[in-house]
Amino acid sequence: MKLYKANILYTPSPTQLETLQGGYIAVDDNGLVEGTYASLPDHLKDCQVTDLGDQLLIPAMNDLHLHAPQYCNTGMAMDMRLLEWLETYTFPEENRFADTHYAQRIYSRFVHDLWLNGTMRSAIFASIHPQATTLLADLISNSGMGAMVGLVGMNRNCPEYLQNTTQSVVDDMKQLINHLKDNPRVKPILTPRFVPTCTDDMLDAMAQLAQEYNLPVQSHLSENPSEIEWVKELQPESANYGDAYYRHGLFGHTPTLMAHCVYTDGDEMELMARQGVVAVHCPTSNSNLASGTARVRHLLDGGVKVALGSDISGGNTMWMMAVMQHAMQVSKIVHAHTQGNEHFLSLNEVMWLATKSGGSFFGKVGSFEPGYEFDAIAIDDSQLAACGNYTLAQRLERFIYLGAPTHITHRYCSGKEVDEPTIIA
Amino acid sequence: MKLYKANILYTPSPTQLETLQGGYIAVDDNGLVEGTYASLPDHLKDCQVTDLGDQLLIPAMNDLHLHAPQYCNTGMAMDMRLLEWLETYTFPEENRFADTHYAQRIYSRFVHDLWLNGTMRSAIFASIHPQATTLLADLISNSGMGAMVGLVGMNRNCPEYLQNTTQSVVDDMKQLINHLKDNPRVKPILTPRFVPTCTDDMLDAMAQLAQEYNLPVQSHLSENPSEIEWVKELQPESANYGDAYYRHGLFGHTPTLMAHCVYTDGDEMELMARQGVVAVHCPTSNSNLASGTARVRHLLDGGVKVALGSDISGGNTMWMMAVMQHAMQVSKIVHAHTQGNEHFLSLNEVMWLATKSGGSFFGKVGSFEPGYEFDAIAIDDSQLAACGNYTLAQRLERFIYLGAPTHITHRYCSGKEVDEPTIIA
Repeated sequence: MKLYKANILYTPSPTQLETLQGGYIAVDDNGLVEGTYASLPDHLKDCQVTDLGDQLLIPAMNDLHLHAPQYCNTGMAMDMRLLEWLETYTFPEENRFADTHYAQRIYSRFVHDLWLNGTMRSAIFASIHPQATTLLADLISNSGMGAMVGLVGMNRNCPEYLQNTTQSVVDDMKQLINHLKDNPRVKPILTPRFVPTCTDDMLDAMAQLAQEYNLPVQSHLSENPSEIEWVKELQPESANYGDAYYRHGLFGHTPTLMAHCVYTDGDEMELMARQGVVAVHCPTSNSNLASGTARVRHLLDGGVKVALGSDISGGNTMWMMAVMQHAMQVSKIVHAHTQGNEHFLSLNEVMWLATKSGGSFFGKVGSFEPGYEFDAIAIDDSQLAACGNYTLAQRLERFIYLGAPTHITHRYCSGKEVDEPTIIA
Repeated sequence: MKLYKANILYTPSPTQLETLQGGYIAVDDNGLVEGTYASLPDHLKDCQVTDLGDQLLIPAMNDLHLHAPQYCNTGMAMDMRLLEWLETYTFPEENRFADTHYAQRIYSRFVHDLWLNGTMRSAIFASIHPQATTLLADLISNSGMGAMVGLVGMNRNCPEYLQNTTQSVVDDMKQLINHLKDNPRVKPILTPRFVPTCTDDMLDAMAQLAQEYNLPVQSHLSENPSEIEWVKELQPESANYGDAYYRHGLFGHTPTLMAHCVYTDGDEMELMARQGVVAVHCPTSNSNLASGTARVRHLLDGGVKVALGSDISGGNTMWMMAVMQHAMQVSKIVHAHTQGNEHFLSLNEVMWLATKSGGSFFGKVGSFEPGYEFDAIAIDDSQLAACGNYTLAQRLERFIYLGAPTHITHRYCSGKEVDEPTIIA
């Protein structure tokens, strides 16, 4: 058993913030939280205590949607919209990951940046390249962090240089599945890029793999009006964009993440709720690419599970505090534009989305309740806290609005401290 | 004459980005830019060169709207809307500046943070307290930065503990005017809080001071629907909110800043354009307080001058890169919501807003064209530039989207390097 003493904060539900000033958290030998305590309990008196002083200790971040091979394009070319941006910047950059040496150099920086930003778990789109994708999975695994990593399937309506085939996706995914079969924290995830770039044949093959190996699925959904129109033309038999995945067995038949859902409503929303499909809200990306404003309150009210994603590089930062911030800001814009009919997301809610709600895709992750894996970040916010007498809740809010990766002093994943990963030159 | 060698970038207009890789900028003994050069010109061969290596050198930031006494509330209490937030958090905190010792402690941190964030010029609301306001002006002046500082006038519809009177505002402003009369970079600005908190009598007295001393004016305009309704009730004879200032001689009769203008349109917009009133766009604040989305493209097309403001503490950060970022993001939301009718703000445009457009309120500030005061920040972005071969324009974009105050290595105001200001404990 390990004990940590700190100012402990976590959100067991969208409306609850637990705070323990100078409290204790006990972590068992399997890396699971045994309990949190306001004062040192008798049965733990002999444990060694890691005293984090006046620091904040909160659950680590979970980023449920980002593209690793777009890492170098982060914060760039934001004067374009989705489809133009894909053709001009994104696809050419992804193509460079055919070169495994390049992949190693960039992915090592990507993994370092996940670490730096306190994101201990992520659901990642790699590229079509099997070597590079395996390498990415290994880099994350070696770091001690957790992830779902997907080799991207795409065989139409995109540059030929960036297409694979149904057969190669099946073969490459089987290799990745085998490679990761005993890995405790890094798992494969089936990753059709999105409906427009995948033939029926490829979607069916992915669904079969999902069934056979009981694997999760991730893709994109209803991000942008032109894209939605395009899907309608390509799949006229589907009732909506989500239904196009559903008809192929890729919509909640196994655990499923759908990024964006900016225009999800009505039948599509009901289908998501019924199938337990997670909407991954990527507010910075939706704003940067002028996609629109997702109605997160409406999705939550409709019974849809929601998580947050940085969507590198449609999103401009991996810093999940900025993603939370922007989620609140966008929801307040929706609030203003609906004359207050859709209530905005509170700080507590976005914190819950980034921790417990997103973390649930990886198991019992994202909270400090007993039985949860101990994924945490320790924060020295003394610089931010110097000018007033802030409560713990206010210190957390100020960290989310004003903090920086340099304020994080320790990162833990599944009970173990995660050291700074090496950048490979 | 001083010479600086660096990667020089500046925006002479909303659509122009000048870049000089390893270029030179010559600054004369009055702190004015003599010229920029791609290579060392003959007539400057004997000047001493400050070589900034591969760093970026861009104009420093201009923040045209922020409240110094709200500094400790930054990034806090963002789950509330404007009027509730004022009563619960803002007014009580401002009241603390009656204590000059408290003011000194907090304002020294505030001034340090302006410096840290590379904001060399700002238009600041202080509070009703004359000693604290003078102290703030002195702290900025001693730092070497520039500002317009206003003692706030408010004598109705706000807590009694935070009211002054027409007479006291006149007396206190005259003292401040006298105190700053020979100050080269820190100037007084007339600052009625906003129409609801000022009687006609107070507005008239402010206008008279503006005329008598040829002083600029700053206030708030059309931020929020409830506020606009309130102004209609209070000033039924005014055609619109802006007209309420205009009728009292406070709307472009001397140079005028109006923060927010979220709902400015039609007659009010025309009046602003005709009177040369500057709309200070505060996108983070408008989002945080659920005020709505200002239509900056519409204002620019209507001939209104626009600048950017952090609006601490409605805004959650003094980092003007985040304000620029959010200005682009909000404009893309407006773009999406108008089916593309209102084109979004480009990176070039927001950079121009934060530098040359905002700077013009302080004279020839915000560009590197000949005759401009040399206000600049040098940026070591080597950490951001490590993973690709970026152009200078891309490096600037990545700095705006991903940079941090710690990347700034040198700050210059009016030709002089500005050293780190002391924080008074």
